[in-house]
Amino acid sequence: MVDVTEKQSSHRVVIIGGGFGGLYAAKALKRAAADVTLIDKRNFHLFQPLLYQVATGTLSPADISSPLRAILSGNKNTQVLMDEVVDLDPEQQKVILKGKELSYDTLIVATGVSHHYFGNDQWKTTAPGLKTVEDALEMRRRIFMAFEAAEKEPDPEKRRAWLTFVVVGGGPTGVELAGAIAELAFNTLKSDFRNIDTTEAQVLLLEGLDRVLPPYDPSLSAKAEVALTRLGVTVETKVLVTNIQDNVVTVKRNGQEEYIPSRTVLWAAGVKASAMGQVLADRAGATLDRAGRVMVEPDLSIAGHSNIFVIGDLANFPHQGERPLPGVAPVAMQEGEYVADLIKQRLQGNTVAPFVYRDIGSLAVIGQNEAVVDLGFVKFDGPLAWFVWIFAHIYYLIEFDNKLIVLLQWGWNYFTRNRGARIITGDEGRMPIDVDKNGGFAIPVDRRSPVEV
Amino acid sequence: MVDVTEKQSSHRVVIIGGGFGGLYAAKALKRAAADVTLIDKRNFHLFQPLLYQVATGTLSPADISSPLRAILSGNKNTQVLMDEVVDLDPEQQKVILKGKELSYDTLIVATGVSHHYFGNDQWKTTAPGLKTVEDALEMRRRIFMAFEAAEKEPDPEKRRAWLTFVVVGGGPTGVELAGAIAELAFNTLKSDFRNIDTTEAQVLLLEGLDRVLPPYDPSLSAKAEVALTRLGVTVETKVLVTNIQDNVVTVKRNGQEEYIPSRTVLWAAGVKASAMGQVLADRAGATLDRAGRVMVEPDLSIAGHSNIFVIGDLANFPHQGERPLPGVAPVAMQEGEYVADLIKQRLQGNTVAPFVYRDIGSLAVIGQNEAVVDLGFVKFDGPLAWFVWIFAHIYYLIEFDNKLIVLLQWGWNYFTRNRGARIITGDEGRMPIDVDKNGGFAIPVDRRSPVEV
Repeated sequence: MVDVTEKQSSHRVVIIGGGFGGLYAAKALKRAAADVTLIDKRNFHLFQPLLYQVATGTLSPADISSPLRAILSGNKNTQVLMDEVVDLDPEQQKVILKGKELSYDTLIVATGVSHHYFGNDQWKTTAPGLKTVEDALEMRRRIFMAFEAAEKEPDPEKRRAWLTFVVVGGGPTGVELAGAIAELAFNTLKSDFRNIDTTEAQVLLLEGLDRVLPPYDPSLSAKAEVALTRLGVTVETKVLVTNIQDNVVTVKRNGQEEYIPSRTVLWAAGVKASAMGQVLADRAGATLDRAGRVMVEPDLSIAGHSNIFVIGDLANFPHQGERPLPGVAPVAMQEGEYVADLIKQRLQGNTVAPFVYRDIGSLAVIGQNEAVVDLGFVKFDGPLAWFVWIFAHIYYLIEFDNKLIVLLQWGWNYFTRNRGARIITGDEGRMPIDVDKNGGFAIPVDRRSPVEV
Repeated sequence: MVDVTEKQSSHRVVIIGGGFGGLYAAKALKRAAADVTLIDKRNFHLFQPLLYQVATGTLSPADISSPLRAILSGNKNTQVLMDEVVDLDPEQQKVILKGKELSYDTLIVATGVSHHYFGNDQWKTTAPGLKTVEDALEMRRRIFMAFEAAEKEPDPEKRRAWLTFVVVGGGPTGVELAGAIAELAFNTLKSDFRNIDTTEAQVLLLEGLDRVLPPYDPSLSAKAEVALTRLGVTVETKVLVTNIQDNVVTVKRNGQEEYIPSRTVLWAAGVKASAMGQVLADRAGATLDRAGRVMVEPDLSIAGHSNIFVIGDLANFPHQGERPLPGVAPVAMQEGEYVADLIKQRLQGNTVAPFVYRDIGSLAVIGQNEAVVDLGFVKFDGPLAWFVWIFAHIYYLIEFDNKLIVLLQWGWNYFTRNRGARIITGDEGRMPIDVDKNGGFAIPVDRRSPVEV
């Protein structure tokens, strides 16, 4: 047996990244006269918009993941390769993988973004971000472990630090995380503990700008803040985080420094381009913006390379309005489908018009029955917005079995306010019992006691 | 706030372990005039009989886990403590935890068993066993990664080693694992790959005795073997594994050594008592059997300590028939409920009769529509046995929302033969691309490439 993409002589399309952009491009190339190879280092597509529900114990990772091979098994012209791209040779039209090289006629780069700590990479371990399944499980572990540690902590001040949750960044992810943690503390876990009152927990949402959900209409930001407050979240705007160390978050407000003792700090403040952006700059002369994203032409190719496209969060598409298109799933999906169509048209000798994003609206969920929706011509919040959010997400969940499971799980949670997935796993889920006294969130890697309980 | 168990003067019951034994004891003590503390190092009860379905990508860990606090939140006399027991002082009636001591009037030890490699602990990393959620996720990672690696492997011999799955041990767990892997290879994954034909995979089930499911009636063992063979499993009995090294399993059959190249070896061959058994021997003079299990009196206490009980897999209860009771969930449940009743009766000045296990039958599942059931008065296999197995397991799934989710997931899988949870996670799910040539299953702990895909 030989590699399908090498064997045939038809047009070779290589797609790097199986997120919304890469996957929708591959799906749209189903009937193209091309050999398609989709490369991802994971074997599944992750429905990132619901990752915060894994982090807070509502869903399991598999509920929002679909194996890429399964999604594309009907695309007979498509090969999925679980591998990592380490370099690129635009002259030879090759991507360099860890173990081999792969030739392309057209290349689509859709490798997305990762967390950005604005020069404070040391915060990475103390304030984890939320991009991967592993990130979400680590957040889940920290959140539920904090309640366990509080239950055992006799010192009131230390207990308070365990019961203080700080979410940094008031964008959609930060809002969703803070709302979900508040629901946990003030509702789900209420009667589970004997020594602590979980409703004494503090859930802080810190935002540097003057309102939460800054990209949305100000009226929705205001509604979101009211809803968050109703859930028990303390929203603080115009606050800058200047340090996270020794279980204390240092913030600056009106020039004054304040200190917030907290054992659980979650990062939802910024993203930067994945390293593939720099590779494109170095090898293909691509221009990057300040966040490392790749500036793209009106047809999503990069200047000077009409056969290399960048789509999704990694792309900076400035040709529509003042700001580049936001890093959300609908943009990536539409860009993927656009590039697929462009390739098919080119193969038939046609040209296509520049990419135009059709804005289908913005959504953010805050808690049960609480969400904000902006469809452009109409803005609303409350239970109706929440239902719109639910069905928009269910609709886009790639595989039907996931839709069914997630819908059922949500339905069940709705009526019981229960969260079935609040289990602590990883490092065999043990307590960080002897975390060093003067701080650090360091969790011991392996502390097997001689006695197995 | 103070520790409830220290505050009050009523009878203090401490239960170590939140498996079937410990949990059913705690549940049954709901209305007892006692302060109950359940200690576990995990925050959840794990429904171990279905763990193999996590290992093979059908269910998610949370589907078969329930938070102990949630299960027991209605038991107002009960405190759950996430902690580890390191020692025991029967004179002072105290258990020594990592951070503190806890006094008891009655102690129930239900810490179960772990894998046993019969003196070959070096096999632990090459042939993982199946006891914890983390074990199951590691198995899942190895199984699905093996197919990914085979897809990329140009050398036919090496590819064959990636497509050879060896399950060591023909008890219920081994039978279930082998059957599920066969269903993956010959069915679920059939059209997912381009360079390999997954139906060329080999699934070997190795058993040292002369039949699979040795504790069951020989007629059921024979039926199980037929069903396994029909699914594509190669069953080999009277075979001893003498070495597992450098991606080769060495077996001895009729005195002859044979070598099986395989990259995925799963251990289902033996268990040994958890370390708490030795603590009971050292501190309380308990007698241990060869597997380290604690010999118990007819009332499940240990000799000389009428207030220390051992239940579940850790206990050797020889007072009923020739062999000790098997290490299965129904035994642990009944023992837990018996000891709870004994405590309640003692508090009222009554005595109780010795423990008697009511055998409700044996079950093992082999694959879809394939199971064997032995209810004593009747033995059967096939689809009916499979349905009995399904409903027995659904019935015992602790929390109702789990039952519903698992039932739906199974129903869906039944009709689609799909498995939604076949995602590779942990170590961010990356390929062990540069596993050293001359063997070892060592997976790199962290090999972040400079390029994020």
